Amino acid sequence: MITGKNQIGNTVSAIGTKTYRTFNPQTNQENLYLFTEAAAEEIDTAVSLAADAYKVFSKKSGKEKAAFLRAIAEEIENLGDDLVKVYTSESGLPEGRAMGERGRTVGQLRAFAAHIEEGSWVDARIDTAQPDRQPIPKIDLRKMNVAIGPIVVFGASNFPLAFSTAGGDTAAAFAAGCPVIVKSHPMHSGTGELVASAIIKAVEKTGMPNGVFSNLNSSGIEVGQALVQHPQVKGVGFTGSIRGGRALLDTAAKRQEPIPVFAEMGSINPVVLLPEALSNKATDWSKTYAGSITLGAGQFCTNPGLLVGVKGEGLDNFAQTLAEEIVKIEPTCMLHPNIIGAYEHNKSTAITQEGVAVLAAYDNDAKPNYGRQAVSKVTGSTFLENPTLHHEVFGPFSLIVECESHTQLEEVLNNLEGQLTGTIVATDSELENNSSIISALQNKVGRIIFNGVPTGVEVCPSMQHGGPYPASTDSRFTAVGVDSIKRWVRPFSFQAWPNTLLPEELQDENPMGISRIINGLQSTDKI
Amino acid sequence: MITGKNQIGNTVSAIGTKTYRTFNPQTNQENLYLFTEAAAEEIDTAVSLAADAYKVFSKKSGKEKAAFLRAIAEEIENLGDDLVKVYTSESGLPEGRAMGERGRTVGQLRAFAAHIEEGSWVDARIDTAQPDRQPIPKIDLRKMNVAIGPIVVFGASNFPLAFSTAGGDTAAAFAAGCPVIVKSHPMHSGTGELVASAIIKAVEKTGMPNGVFSNLNSSGIEVGQALVQHPQVKGVGFTGSIRGGRALLDTAAKRQEPIPVFAEMGSINPVVLLPEALSNKATDWSKTYAGSITLGAGQFCTNPGLLVGVKGEGLDNFAQTLAEEIVKIEPTCMLHPNIIGAYEHNKSTAITQEGVAVLAAYDNDAKPNYGRQAVSKVTGSTFLENPTLHHEVFGPFSLIVECESHTQLEEVLNNLEGQLTGTIVATDSELENNSSIISALQNKVGRIIFNGVPTGVEVCPSMQHGGPYPASTDSRFTAVGVDSIKRWVRPFSFQAWPNTLLPEELQDENPMGISRIINGLQSTDKI
Repeated sequence: MITGKNQIGNTVSAIGTKTYRTFNPQTNQENLYLFTEAAAEEIDTAVSLAADAYKVFSKKSGKEKAAFLRAIAEEIENLGDDLVKVYTSESGLPEGRAMGERGRTVGQLRAFAAHIEEGSWVDARIDTAQPDRQPIPKIDLRKMNVAIGPIVVFGASNFPLAFSTAGGDTAAAFAAGCPVIVKSHPMHSGTGELVASAIIKAVEKTGMPNGVFSNLNSSGIEVGQALVQHPQVKGVGFTGSIRGGRALLDTAAKRQEPIPVFAEMGSINPVVLLPEALSNKATDWSKTYAGSITLGAGQFCTNPGLLVGVKGEGLDNFAQTLAEEIVKIEPTCMLHPNIIGAYEHNKSTAITQEGVAVLAAYDNDAKPNYGRQAVSKVTGSTFLENPTLHHEVFGPFSLIVECESHTQLEEVLNNLEGQLTGTIVATDSELENNSSIISALQNKVGRIIFNGVPTGVEVCPSMQHGGPYPASTDSRFTAVGVDSIKRWVRPFSFQAWPNTLLPEELQDENPMGISRIINGLQSTDKI
Repeated sequence: MITGKNQIGNTVSAIGTKTYRTFNPQTNQENLYLFTEAAAEEIDTAVSLAADAYKVFSKKSGKEKAAFLRAIAEEIENLGDDLVKVYTSESGLPEGRAMGERGRTVGQLRAFAAHIEEGSWVDARIDTAQPDRQPIPKIDLRKMNVAIGPIVVFGASNFPLAFSTAGGDTAAAFAAGCPVIVKSHPMHSGTGELVASAIIKAVEKTGMPNGVFSNLNSSGIEVGQALVQHPQVKGVGFTGSIRGGRALLDTAAKRQEPIPVFAEMGSINPVVLLPEALSNKATDWSKTYAGSITLGAGQFCTNPGLLVGVKGEGLDNFAQTLAEEIVKIEPTCMLHPNIIGAYEHNKSTAITQEGVAVLAAYDNDAKPNYGRQAVSKVTGSTFLENPTLHHEVFGPFSLIVECESHTQLEEVLNNLEGQLTGTIVATDSELENNSSIISALQNKVGRIIFNGVPTGVEVCPSMQHGGPYPASTDSRFTAVGVDSIKRWVRPFSFQAWPNTLLPEELQDENPMGISRIINGLQSTDKI
């Protein structure tokens, strides 16, 4: 079923000599499939095919690209149980999660299909000619978004489907008209291969050009670096660690032609707990947060890793109940020995810092690779003095910061790095009366949540998934939702271009019926 | 009239010891005004005031920011003849150009005022709650663009008004809600000081926070580098040379928190001349291009520096007439001895390359600092072999590339760097039948022009001014037109946020009546 080969355009290939296997954290054993890493020649061929495919693919209509995206979704569904089996064997995640994530992945593909079929996303602007304008005539000018070129997508460890081979980055790039070369994640290369085969079936079924998609295996950093350095690659999508994302950003910045890198990286997703809200609901909130912290073994980028409150009875009650509740939860399997290794190391670094008290730690025996949750606590001043405590501990861990006052709480927020999300647990009047705390939080995050939990990232147009660095490398874009297509397009103007040779989106007749800005006014009118 | 001091928020200051003067290229003498460079302390104060001002300014409504922009325009107009006098004395440009550029500058400010007053630019997306959705409820989520923080703007040598102190970058940043610190261009610091004083009057008149604007003098690179490295600066706008822009990009990329740099840099703006179009209109086109090449002494970033055609009678006629016509034009004054020095050096480098023939060169005496135009010619194969010929010669110079065939012409285009514009001179049938040449040109440029000249950049929503590197550092944005506001904003999501505490743009009642995407559909409806 799994060949272990690379997908170079429509051809499978394995000319390299370096091999690796994936690992099943549930059975604590290597899986049988043997993957061959992509060789330099295969990398070159994949990029060169992508550059050729770009010329054809970038000109495909929204309808044609939509048919391709829908075919990918269908072929992924056609993989059936095989995909679920390989997914679970390579991630330790349960079947339900596999199926949920598959649903999300095909849902994303279909959302992009609908988005580009409708077509208004190209942001068409038309300024018609005014030949009689004084002192000089105005010439007809029309603008729309076009694809930037071949994109390299790095699979994410924690989302083998939704943020990997045919995940959000790939779907957005295809929707934009950009070919994609995936650097498969070494923890789930079998899952990646199956999804890649589904994409290739869709390529062939819908007549897309050879090279519009390739999938390269690699267990180290060399293949990824070579891809990002390749002159014909025009953009990069990445989900993972700050260290990994920053390395790619630095590599891209050193190119003769620098290219955009959108990396969605670390986040501790601060949660601000205000006293009144905790005064009678401390127990409810602590139960909710015990669930959010341990959800998926804490392996979500929106995991609440920092709980900031003001000293007092409410916070004490919250902390105590959270401590009691969180140890009642059964640990679950983490993705890989390396992930749990890093978790244990980072957790231990955090809890051994001066002034950090451990409030709760699951200390019963757990199966190998099962992540044991912990909650610890520190004062606001200690937190402010020790930047080590500001770093993410990827896994089921959270740190309570007990501030002396609202002022210190604001100072804590002002001293955080950029984050994907910020949450505020407050009464309505607390929300109204703490505008400077809320502003401080807003300045650090991409999404702010009132009386909820950060986990759970809805895929919809109003989702912002990305935030000030290091939450992401460019806060001006999102990694989730249809607006993520904007990462892979550039505006392009046609001046005095004959109507019949314009793309449909810019033609007088508006054959697609899209919404455009014509001489400054938004409308679906013809000209 | 000119104090030579820095504008640090609302205070003028000159604590530094390094001074410099601007130069009048028409009189070939230094101007009298003495400028004091910003000292480290002044840089720090300016940025720190900007960071404070951001908290207030970024929350101002579109109406309030529009009033500020309109007041700036008015105060610039109130500077009257003083501004024109200082402008001409620091640029060598004629009065008419000064007044035209002033008109463009205040026009840009007012266009942004109208844009943000209307308000739809924030790209509001609203997805309402579905509490009964299965398997999990959908939570209310709303997104809009918000300001990213203090922006550093570098004045451009060739546009003392429209791309400098209160130019497009500054207008866009203010419109977005970002404070601005301008690094004044050393060639026209007096012009910059006058405009800065107008901005400060507008700040005070419309009650904008102290620090929303600062203007720093500097004749070297240190002040600019210090600004780009400052942790509280969140974005950079630059118009100038590739070397200068790349240096800022590299500095920004090395920061602990990398920040976006939008630099609009070099471009040779290739013009493709197809044979049929030249067969009977060679003379017309050569006259048109003689004018475009020498317009403003060739000191526009859209100056046509490369004319690519296919060997034959049409191209011969075009070249011959262009040579005859261009020497009839009287040279005009260039901006500064350094600019004309670089022009003469780069022109000489180009025309002394092997295989380059000079077709025409103005060789009468010209006044000091007047740029003498030249046109040269090279074969397609020589051009392909020699990358030196691909570089910009900033000034009234153009190189004709004579290709063996349409195939070689396409190869020439494929080997160019990224460009702001590409022009195609063709008959309708040539345009229809040369799709691969047109695609090759499109892939290299931000704006494509049919049967026209690249000079003349209309300020309107459909203008794309920016292109693949090195035309600009990020082809996904424009430096001209209201869409240039997108460089300085990031999307921000509010989850489950109380309606009354949302920004007006996201409230149920849609009090501003803006166009929003509500549950996937564009409308101006209430909810």
